[in-house]
Amino acid sequence: MTDEATAFVPGHVTGFFSAHPADEPVKAGSRGAGVTLSHGVEVTARPSDESTVLELDGDAVSMPPVERVLDALGVDAAVRAETSLPIGAGFGVSGAMALGTALTANVVFDCGRSENELVALAHVAEVQSGTGLGDVVAQARGGVPIRLDPGAPGYGRLDGVPARPDVEYVTFGELPTEAVLSGDTDRLSAAGEDALARLVREPTLAQFMYASRRFAREAGLLTDEVTEAIRAVSDAGGEASMAMLGRTVFALGSGLTDAGYDAVSCRTHPAGATLQ
Amino acid sequence: MTDEATAFVPGHVTGFFSAHPADEPVKAGSRGAGVTLSHGVEVTARPSDESTVLELDGDAVSMPPVERVLDALGVDAAVRAETSLPIGAGFGVSGAMALGTALTANVVFDCGRSENELVALAHVAEVQSGTGLGDVVAQARGGVPIRLDPGAPGYGRLDGVPARPDVEYVTFGELPTEAVLSGDTDRLSAAGEDALARLVREPTLAQFMYASRRFAREAGLLTDEVTEAIRAVSDAGGEASMAMLGRTVFALGSGLTDAGYDAVSCRTHPAGATLQ
Repeated sequence: MTDEATAFVPGHVTGFFSAHPADEPVKAGSRGAGVTLSHGVEVTARPSDESTVLELDGDAVSMPPVERVLDALGVDAAVRAETSLPIGAGFGVSGAMALGTALTANVVFDCGRSENELVALAHVAEVQSGTGLGDVVAQARGGVPIRLDPGAPGYGRLDGVPARPDVEYVTFGELPTEAVLSGDTDRLSAAGEDALARLVREPTLAQFMYASRRFAREAGLLTDEVTEAIRAVSDAGGEASMAMLGRTVFALGSGLTDAGYDAVSCRTHPAGATLQ
Repeated sequence: MTDEATAFVPGHVTGFFSAHPADEPVKAGSRGAGVTLSHGVEVTARPSDESTVLELDGDAVSMPPVERVLDALGVDAAVRAETSLPIGAGFGVSGAMALGTALTANVVFDCGRSENELVALAHVAEVQSGTGLGDVVAQARGGVPIRLDPGAPGYGRLDGVPARPDVEYVTFGELPTEAVLSGDTDRLSAAGEDALARLVREPTLAQFMYASRRFAREAGLLTDEVTEAIRAVSDAGGEASMAMLGRTVFALGSGLTDAGYDAVSCRTHPAGATLQ
């Protein structure tokens, strides 16, 4: 047993997706595409004297996906997470915490699981908690992941857009994932399947941004401030779309700054989740 | 068309493998496991006025896998590669050059291929050239890749040992991949399958190093200086094995230095090949 272990898990912004429930959570998930970010979540796990303790940016929090991961590994841990990403705004923070917990607890408690097994544990924990469908597998891969088929490693299939752009983002507030995913997702999923077919035909950044904007419009998830920001970036000659699911706009390069927004700037993350 | 593009591809040291030929090169490859290295190859591609030009560390070279990649993309390029890795000594330099060429030429010539398509192109080019069977897919993934099934993305399956150790290496000379792979590989492959079964049962660093040493012995590939170095590291309390295929010894942490060798030190690469 090691004293503690730390992992970094990139943030992940989904541009478009379709929801694919399944009886076995390991087969459930989403198809779609997104961008992983150099901004993410640093997760540290240590053995805990009593039951599991969870801290996010210094505050005690409850986070079902993390608790499910630790249950599945059969350990009690003190998990400390720090992030500069906004919470509940479409950056995959819950997926990052679940995956970071799986990677670090495996080291601390000598669980002897493989990478695929740990990604599967975190994916299943997110699906069962209703907090996400595709962030974990994307965050494990890095880059600009395309989720060709839903599910954990061994079931899902991934590809990627071979590009590593600078990314900016601005957030206007939360949009709870659980509320959208538990509602009627038929219209959204039809738009997501259409977007994926476009991107598979032409796996470029330009097509990813175009398909994402089209999806946001067709899925009926746009809010006024999001629409306005996407249009402003476009008017300034840039490319932007909405982060699923959050009242968040992301743009390539300096698109939001060029349009006059006070945006946060980062890069595409090359690596996916890594132990430090 | 962009003026030029640069990619970094990590070196890859295979600990053990079994060879799996197939009529379709996309399905051929190897099963096994290895470590990707923070030392690798930086590849830059530019449009070429005439036919393809290839430079490695400032010298004009001929490298069939690179030429096959450019042929498959239908472009003529000037490709410049720089590396601190020894050539022909088991570090996957030819795979790195093939994969780096695929990633950069795709950008420079707007080829519009996906990541999986580019990895498959480079894998097929290596297999057809007889220069490697599993480096490319491992170098695309990063970390400590386990090759569960042979072949390019869509055919092969990968997992990983969730660890990121420091690595040292020392090289005593070349061991041509082509010569070994074109000979009788039955004994070698039987030993490789046995090693893989062990690692899948227990996907840890300790098991990877143990299975690799056992493989090197059973496959009959050890040379005297390699045997001596592995034993010296072990006597000093460390873990080392032989890089397949080269007269190279790699060790975890500072194992070779501790045993009195003048070794090169690096880390496990977290990311796999990336555009810069």
